[in-house]
Amino acid sequence: MTGRDGGADLMPIGNSPVVILVRPQLADNVGAVARAMANGGLFHLRLVAPRDGWPQERAWRMASGADRILDQAVVFPDVAAAVADLHHVFATCPRPRHIIKPVLTARGGAAELREITNRGLSAGVLFGPERAGLDNDDMAQADALIRYPLNPAFMSLNLSQAVMVMAYEWWMAADATPPRALMTNETAVATKAELEGFLGHLIAELDACGFLRNQPKRPGMVRNIRHLFERGEVTEQELRTLHGVVTELSLGRRQRGRVED
Amino acid sequence: MTGRDGGADLMPIGNSPVVILVRPQLADNVGAVARAMANGGLFHLRLVAPRDGWPQERAWRMASGADRILDQAVVFPDVAAAVADLHHVFATCPRPRHIIKPVLTARGGAAELREITNRGLSAGVLFGPERAGLDNDDMAQADALIRYPLNPAFMSLNLSQAVMVMAYEWWMAADATPPRALMTNETAVATKAELEGFLGHLIAELDACGFLRNQPKRPGMVRNIRHLFERGEVTEQELRTLHGVVTELSLGRRQRGRVED
Repeated sequence: MTGRDGGADLMPIGNSPVVILVRPQLADNVGAVARAMANGGLFHLRLVAPRDGWPQERAWRMASGADRILDQAVVFPDVAAAVADLHHVFATCPRPRHIIKPVLTARGGAAELREITNRGLSAGVLFGPERAGLDNDDMAQADALIRYPLNPAFMSLNLSQAVMVMAYEWWMAADATPPRALMTNETAVATKAELEGFLGHLIAELDACGFLRNQPKRPGMVRNIRHLFERGEVTEQELRTLHGVVTELSLGRRQRGRVED
Repeated sequence: MTGRDGGADLMPIGNSPVVILVRPQLADNVGAVARAMANGGLFHLRLVAPRDGWPQERAWRMASGADRILDQAVVFPDVAAAVADLHHVFATCPRPRHIIKPVLTARGGAAELREITNRGLSAGVLFGPERAGLDNDDMAQADALIRYPLNPAFMSLNLSQAVMVMAYEWWMAADATPPRALMTNETAVATKAELEGFLGHLIAELDACGFLRNQPKRPGMVRNIRHLFERGEVTEQELRTLHGVVTELSLGRRQRGRVED
């Protein structure tokens, strides 16, 4: 999906927010922004007065196949023109000062963008130029500012990284992937009875080889082994492997004539 | 804090996870990774068999002042050596296949990394080489995989972007910034009584100028105006400005001799 001929087969996904790069300086960054937008399922890109003009071939080279986002990017002379058809505008701003405005986190902003776009309204997010960031007049045109919680000792965020965080949060705001899941592929998580079948096999062989011969300690030793195997999910395939391991180890032991130990 | 002479004054923040770049190809990316790590409050960087050797001046040029992370990066010959002193290892993997392993989201992984490091254990996160990603032997050395929920139509994630998302989630996992807050700076959110004071002033002037002369419609018109101003938080400073606006508008009206309208 990241072929070179015209790039990946990207399309707008639903009613997604517009990314508005205000006076971007480097075409490389515009390309990296398009790639980050594609990662997070964003599509609509607007450029306000790009310093070196537009289009710039370097942008396409840095987009890693997110060509269609660049192909359809629209250039505007100023922020007012770029936001004129939108209902809501947020402005990313790492260090807001002397301004009375709601400030959202990236996560809070993404949640509000989902609420806005789910209601059929259009939204945009302003990102400032690489060095200076948005100026006060840019920010005055926004409903709210978005400031990412990040290490206060190192706030210098690359433009495409800033878009990446926002695009990622936009995607996550509608994502339901469980935070942890065992990937089992062709097999499945074993039931307690299946696990018990293996533990029975193991303990029988451990009895047979004499590993559990100390009768007073035997219950505790069995419980310790059980604790280890009960700790996490085990798959049916892994239990088959473990059955095989126990069988082969005990067989090898017998074949080496040490079964009487 | 991003000065050039030795870079920003970065230090490890608590017991933070190690970022392990496995066979990284481009020094530019290693530098951009250091910058992203600094953004998210990570400090410890390990490099497994970097393709072009180490150190590489280009990395420092791309780090935007995160020099100390690069200065203290440690090179290892293989993954086993790089993780030997760690208690937990996660491996980022965009497309895991035919492998039985817990899979975490970036957010789920960050929460677990916080739990692990809060217990005084050490943790690391593996990131694969730019093109190929981690191989099966690399992944077999990890406790769990981390797969970011992202647009399945465009999974090509730049290495430094991958580290950015993880570093951001690491920071967010311990962050308590409210998702939305009104930044008021020197002023404060007005109380209902203060807002009522302004509404009384406005309505009195609107009565005086005749705007509310239609008595049957007057209650509804007053409510509409009230609804607008009650909709969001208004600050004391904004109320002072609004008092001034109403006073000046009504005064101008009088001065233009139209008070009898």
